[in-house]
Amino acid sequence: MADNSRPARPVLGQNQYGKAENRVVRITRDGATHHIKDLNVSVSLSGDMEDVHYSGSNASVLPTDTTKNTVYAFAKEHGIESAEQFGIHLARHFVTSQEPIHRARIRIEEYGWERIEHGGKGAHSFARTGQETRLTQITYDGSSWEVVSGLKDLVVLNSTDSEFWGYVKDKYTTLPEAYDRILATEVSARWRFNWTDDEQQAPDWEESYAQTRQHLLRAFAETYSLSLQQTLYAMGSRIVEQRAEIDEVRFSLPNKHHFLVDLGPFGLKNDNEVYFAADRPYGLIEATVLRDGCEARIPADLTNL
Amino acid sequence: MADNSRPARPVLGQNQYGKAENRVVRITRDGATHHIKDLNVSVSLSGDMEDVHYSGSNASVLPTDTTKNTVYAFAKEHGIESAEQFGIHLARHFVTSQEPIHRARIRIEEYGWERIEHGGKGAHSFARTGQETRLTQITYDGSSWEVVSGLKDLVVLNSTDSEFWGYVKDKYTTLPEAYDRILATEVSARWRFNWTDDEQQAPDWEESYAQTRQHLLRAFAETYSLSLQQTLYAMGSRIVEQRAEIDEVRFSLPNKHHFLVDLGPFGLKNDNEVYFAADRPYGLIEATVLRDGCEARIPADLTNL
Amino acid sequence: MADNSRPARPVLGQNQYGKAENRVVRITRDGATHHIKDLNVSVSLSGDMEDVHYSGSNASVLPTDTTKNTVYAFAKEHGIESAEQFGIHLARHFVTSQEPIHRARIRIEEYGWERIEHGGKGAHSFARTGQETRLTQITYDGSSWEVVSGLKDLVVLNSTDSEFWGYVKDKYTTLPEAYDRILATEVSARWRFNWTDDEQQAPDWEESYAQTRQHLLRAFAETYSLSLQQTLYAMGSRIVEQRAEIDEVRFSLPNKHHFLVDLGPFGLKNDNEVYFAADRPYGLIEATVLRDGCEARIPADLTNL
Amino acid sequence: MADNSRPARPVLGQNQYGKAENRVVRITRDGATHHIKDLNVSVSLSGDMEDVHYSGSNASVLPTDTTKNTVYAFAKEHGIESAEQFGIHLARHFVTSQEPIHRARIRIEEYGWERIEHGGKGAHSFARTGQETRLTQITYDGSSWEVVSGLKDLVVLNSTDSEFWGYVKDKYTTLPEAYDRILATEVSARWRFNWTDDEQQAPDWEESYAQTRQHLLRAFAETYSLSLQQTLYAMGSRIVEQRAEIDEVRFSLPNKHHFLVDLGPFGLKNDNEVYFAADRPYGLIEATVLRDGCEARIPADLTNL
Repeated sequence: MADNSRPARPVLGQNQYGKAENRVVRITRDGATHHIKDLNVSVSLSGDMEDVHYSGSNASVLPTDTTKNTVYAFAKEHGIESAEQFGIHLARHFVTSQEPIHRARIRIEEYGWERIEHGGKGAHSFARTGQETRLTQITYDGSSWEVVSGLKDLVVLNSTDSEFWGYVKDKYTTLPEAYDRILATEVSARWRFNWTDDEQQAPDWEESYAQTRQHLLRAFAETYSLSLQQTLYAMGSRIVEQRAEIDEVRFSLPNKHHFLVDLGPFGLKNDNEVYFAADRPYGLIEATVLRDGCEARIPADLTNL
Repeated sequence: MADNSRPARPVLGQNQYGKAENRVVRITRDGATHHIKDLNVSVSLSGDMEDVHYSGSNASVLPTDTTKNTVYAFAKEHGIESAEQFGIHLARHFVTSQEPIHRARIRIEEYGWERIEHGGKGAHSFARTGQETRLTQITYDGSSWEVVSGLKDLVVLNSTDSEFWGYVKDKYTTLPEAYDRILATEVSARWRFNWTDDEQQAPDWEESYAQTRQHLLRAFAETYSLSLQQTLYAMGSRIVEQRAEIDEVRFSLPNKHHFLVDLGPFGLKNDNEVYFAADRPYGLIEATVLRDGCEARIPADLTNL
Repeated sequence: MADNSRPARPVLGQNQYGKAENRVVRITRDGATHHIKDLNVSVSLSGDMEDVHYSGSNASVLPTDTTKNTVYAFAKEHGIESAEQFGIHLARHFVTSQEPIHRARIRIEEYGWERIEHGGKGAHSFARTGQETRLTQITYDGSSWEVVSGLKDLVVLNSTDSEFWGYVKDKYTTLPEAYDRILATEVSARWRFNWTDDEQQAPDWEESYAQTRQHLLRAFAETYSLSLQQTLYAMGSRIVEQRAEIDEVRFSLPNKHHFLVDLGPFGLKNDNEVYFAADRPYGLIEATVLRDGCEARIPADLTNL
Repeated sequence: MADNSRPARPVLGQNQYGKAENRVVRITRDGATHHIKDLNVSVSLSGDMEDVHYSGSNASVLPTDTTKNTVYAFAKEHGIESAEQFGIHLARHFVTSQEPIHRARIRIEEYGWERIEHGGKGAHSFARTGQETRLTQITYDGSSWEVVSGLKDLVVLNSTDSEFWGYVKDKYTTLPEAYDRILATEVSARWRFNWTDDEQQAPDWEESYAQTRQHLLRAFAETYSLSLQQTLYAMGSRIVEQRAEIDEVRFSLPNKHHFLVDLGPFGLKNDNEVYFAADRPYGLIEATVLRDGCEARIPADLTNL
């Protein structure tokens, strides 16, 4: 019987652990032509882990060092066909090979490389594209899969076809309405695949990424924008409409303000030519777009407290 | 009647918007003695925002520029007693003054300053402490409050009293057991207050922060650690046990590995003296500690995809 | 006569001041086709500035705020044909319009944008390339010009055709020789033009940059490398040989180590396939390559203390 | 005789190489009381290195990997009494043990730690201070020493006793004069010691740093400032006057602007209470202060192109 004179000890809630940011570069040689995959892989495992928290017993703990070794060994054993497929191999392994582990979540960042054109022999020279970072997150609980892919750090700008007016005005409102402004943002997007189980039916991950990225960019460029929210919805709905494998898209879009500089004091007219690109503060527009009838599962906060 | 020959258009899910990273510094003069509060305030509003996403109509949108102005005006009107109290003023204002806004979330980072001791007159000279960044998040939906505070970037290290052994070994395990190692981490913590409504009963936010931080540090220092998970639980349970106003603590603890350098090839013995401080990869240990019977509400991922 | 009983007061040495990191975006409209220049401009002025340091008298000081305004006004008045030409306009202005200013140095970072291909009207949509940052520094003392341009953050990699052996071995050497390794670096380069005076004879700055960048990349790709120093010299000499307008090139090349992972413990052979991309430490190779007979003028340290 | 029909090949100028950013943590046990030194050490070697650049012959090249090993071995063999003394050991070793090496430059960043007060046994728990990073650079050419120490990232602020008026006004000047403003900067400073040879006469490096830092902070706090240049000179001259071992000080001081927010549109008066802390652009004030009769040797640019 519990001693009612003192409170129960605090209890353990959700917990996860693993090795984060394993930087793995995989070279595949096709004769004198080399191919490169450049990933940053983070492993996160959950399961029966009460003991290690309460008493420090590691009897159920696969060391994070082992999860790191597994990443490198799998890059050899399975190759890296795509970040998504690589994450699937890893997640399945941890959940199926270790009884105390009930869930594995693999997060991967992928950096792009392009070939350097040159006059020498072979094709083994590359420059990092430096543009967006491709993302994926694979979660497996032993029965079904959740794959959320996306990108971050993709900076885009329309130098016209953007307005902002007709908004609420209260006692703290001083913003003048704008009928031709720059619209710029640094796209952070995540999209969830509706694939959950049969590996034979899995999407073509590379093709899906290339197409989704292109739809996103085109929707940004083709939308005459009355607000960044409208542009966000245009990008998200385009993806859901065009890509049957995707049910949900979440965006976090900082409004990277470009302020028209007042050149009047210098006797100059600024006819939408000269802008100050500001750092902070920035508007932050976040929303989910869903296939009708589907449930939202991507967390609301892609950026953190 | 719906046309079944074509799919319904995609729908809008959770959405929020506002001005992020408003940097506000508030000086209060008490004669020749000045006081400083240095905050980074992010506003995020939710409500009836379908129109702006679907059609670009801003008729329900309070501009993010206005939310910025409100932050600065409130710093004057209400002062900044604490980050938490300041966030409460802001959240209440947005929800109660604008009908379409149903929820306001205010996130604040606070930077610490210490006085510069000197021989001159007055007390208006400060140096930034540069240690942890203090955090708070205030959420208000018109009826109840949720306050989650915390800190990040607090780097701590025990140079002994840490072991790691007795763990699972599989075919990918090569890590040798350790009986005396450095344990170091960069603490990222969030704790949720059980206060939800009566403002007369609100905690003393400044005192609560100072005490919670101290309990966290002492628990880290006083725990003989068999795993970082154990240390995490020790810190979380100490806080829950010692601070009645806090029901839940979430930690994200990177294991900042300090590897003992093998000096054998140079004819030297490394008796736990010389370490290599590694950057990546790192173990990442995350968990929630809860007051018994309480529900977890802090999201699992303090770090992002 | 000086009082010998006490030391002379400390004297002022080299000094400079100005507004740093003015972010200016210039849009040029050619009908429905827009062009974009995106710069980060830093102004640094030197001259007769003893009084402001010794006594706080600002009688010779053009405010840094004014130098900022001048950047934006000149973006309108002169347009931005190239970063170099824009810097020339600014430097000339400060030195010739303000008597106390004897030298102006303008540093500019330029960010690249590419057009987004799409099916809509107009051509006013852009994505940041995200690859290298282009650099230039213009210095003018009222009589002659020095122009140093360059780039940073260009990450390149050869997956073969790199060896490292035959080096000095002392008692602290444990590195095994390598006969087929990855060679990767993040190029930071500066090159000095021999143009100094007649503006009619100035180089075509845009063409010069495009060609120099290409020579650099090709030399990297085409060099079978026995050391990163050799590759550095190959890149520098290629530029000096191919570009008559450039007399001097300085490189700072971190050797971004890609370590072959030992998969032996897992019963796997790593045939130059799987690498760990390390962060720190890194080799750092720095050198100047000069046209024969020319004097070096670029400072040795592109990276700082 | 040279072939005049083709140009001479480009020549090698100043060059240096080594392993950068070796992170070494040294624990010293004094019974149950531990001491910690946490350094980031970069080695840079110069000498007879033409062959490796021209032909790739590494016969004169001590591998950067060896310089890394030496750092760790010396942390054991010599301990780390101070960053300066540690750098002296390293520099002397490279120049005296390897004939092709004529100059060694050791740069060190040092991170501060403070003890965590607690109720447990022992004294082996630390928190990083997070304030300034301490710096030193040791250069040795086989005959004499140059030691330049300093700090960076030390953010300081005076909330009053700062004015700015009486400056030059041209057609681009719009700045209103200020008679009571916040003065804030992030101090980056380097100071050169006049010690060059006799190791018995070397300064007490730890004491020198502590005192110099304190003089710098006090001069900042005690100076009623009419311009940041004046404050810079006050800090530099205080150090030169008070510390006989230092002949030269160089500062790079970003003017971290805190703009008084205009609250007039909201019917509020801002009596130097509410400020917007801006990121970019910022004024940048740089200057050297010298002991009378001494020569300047610290490079003008602590920040880079």
